[in-house]
Amino acid sequence: MMARIKITIAYDGRNYAGWQIQPNHMTVQQRLCEALYKITKVESRVIGSGRTDTGVHAQGQVAHFDASDNLQMNIYNWVPAFNTALPLDIRVLKAEEVSDEFHAQFGAKLKTYEYRINISSILSPFLVGRVWNEPRQLDKKIFQEALNIFVGEHDFAAFAANRGLGSEPLSTVREITQVEFIDEGEDIYVRMTGRGFLYKMVRLIIGGCMKVSSGRYYLEDLQQLLDHPEVGGTKSPLCAPADGLTLKSVEYE
Amino acid sequence: MMARIKITIAYDGRNYAGWQIQPNHMTVQQRLCEALYKITKVESRVIGSGRTDTGVHAQGQVAHFDASDNLQMNIYNWVPAFNTALPLDIRVLKAEEVSDEFHAQFGAKLKTYEYRINISSILSPFLVGRVWNEPRQLDKKIFQEALNIFVGEHDFAAFAANRGLGSEPLSTVREITQVEFIDEGEDIYVRMTGRGFLYKMVRLIIGGCMKVSSGRYYLEDLQQLLDHPEVGGTKSPLCAPADGLTLKSVEYE
Repeated sequence: MMARIKITIAYDGRNYAGWQIQPNHMTVQQRLCEALYKITKVESRVIGSGRTDTGVHAQGQVAHFDASDNLQMNIYNWVPAFNTALPLDIRVLKAEEVSDEFHAQFGAKLKTYEYRINISSILSPFLVGRVWNEPRQLDKKIFQEALNIFVGEHDFAAFAANRGLGSEPLSTVREITQVEFIDEGEDIYVRMTGRGFLYKMVRLIIGGCMKVSSGRYYLEDLQQLLDHPEVGGTKSPLCAPADGLTLKSVEYE
Repeated sequence: MMARIKITIAYDGRNYAGWQIQPNHMTVQQRLCEALYKITKVESRVIGSGRTDTGVHAQGQVAHFDASDNLQMNIYNWVPAFNTALPLDIRVLKAEEVSDEFHAQFGAKLKTYEYRINISSILSPFLVGRVWNEPRQLDKKIFQEALNIFVGEHDFAAFAANRGLGSEPLSTVREITQVEFIDEGEDIYVRMTGRGFLYKMVRLIIGGCMKVSSGRYYLEDLQQLLDHPEVGGTKSPLCAPADGLTLKSVEYE
């Protein structure tokens, strides 16, 4: 018999080439698989809710794996066992036994990302790799106005990077259910919740809003990209750096 | 003619073997001297208010150096010039022209250190190297009580590490003018202001308070160490790790 375990994970993305296992680069998924092997002495796959890119952080990434009942591991022991086996920049926050039906990727209903912009003229040494430092004057009102056009169901083709040949998604229509703009003076937090995001979608939206709010692009043109995306056509004028992006939470039914 | 420049510096201490230049290890002072050389093409010494140890951070370290008038450098250009030449984990926050009488070390009147303790059972990956994570139960009231005994002028010999033969300070009497205990739930910030601190003094005080507040040492014994330090005698029962320590500010007359 197998038990399916759901884990919630936080990580500092600065030292990793993203979530997904790949040759020649250290990734978060690989670290988790290595930790799981140390605990169980069995090779098993840890399946995440989705990829995060190089340098992107997480406060609530979700993954699952199957563990043999023979382990006789109490559910309360998974968190300390993982955290002893993992490096300090990856932490398992929670472990729950779930039904065999649960799937971290296919079952994900809503994801919330947070993007942090810092506008101070001198970036704190403690925020390197954690924020997008843009010391230029940006109009916060216009940023919010630009951000709000993305709420709802749209064809986000102009706000998606190509992953390369053969890996194009079938549809570029997605729904953003909520955006939040939190103004803390020199720090701006943008939260975006949706039923799924295309590759680099959050960063291309944030980049577009930044261009508009600093007077380097017209809001009407951004709206045009959203309303009339052409296949292989114009893309968002800017992709915000990975540094400021954090996967906050993933919700399941 | 020379102009004396006072700079205020912030740094993330994680990547440095402390402030002071030394062979075979990268230090903050060395980075600043290198940056100054890049700017002026002249070897000059950057003199700090005092050392900070390996892994200790700063938000308001102060230093000075002398620059030739021939440079014709506008005072407003020093900050961007330094920050272009420095790595991102060291930032010059401010540059001011001061009189020849100013000396960053000998003129320092008050220093404020902040020590951050985090008591959560799972340390956030974003706080690694930035706090002392002590998930054990600590009694905040007793911690404050222990902390308060240090205010005033005392012989802190039991709260000073030896720097090695020949480098002992003449006197181990120091004055702590103020302590502050800021309780933010899982984060505790302790601020300590004084006219000067002995080697590892803040960390030995914090370590002692931690021992007392977690019931592993008597407050009376800590008081005893403060009231009756013996030369070469008993030391504070614990030295808190460098991670949690930040030099907040240095004040001059």
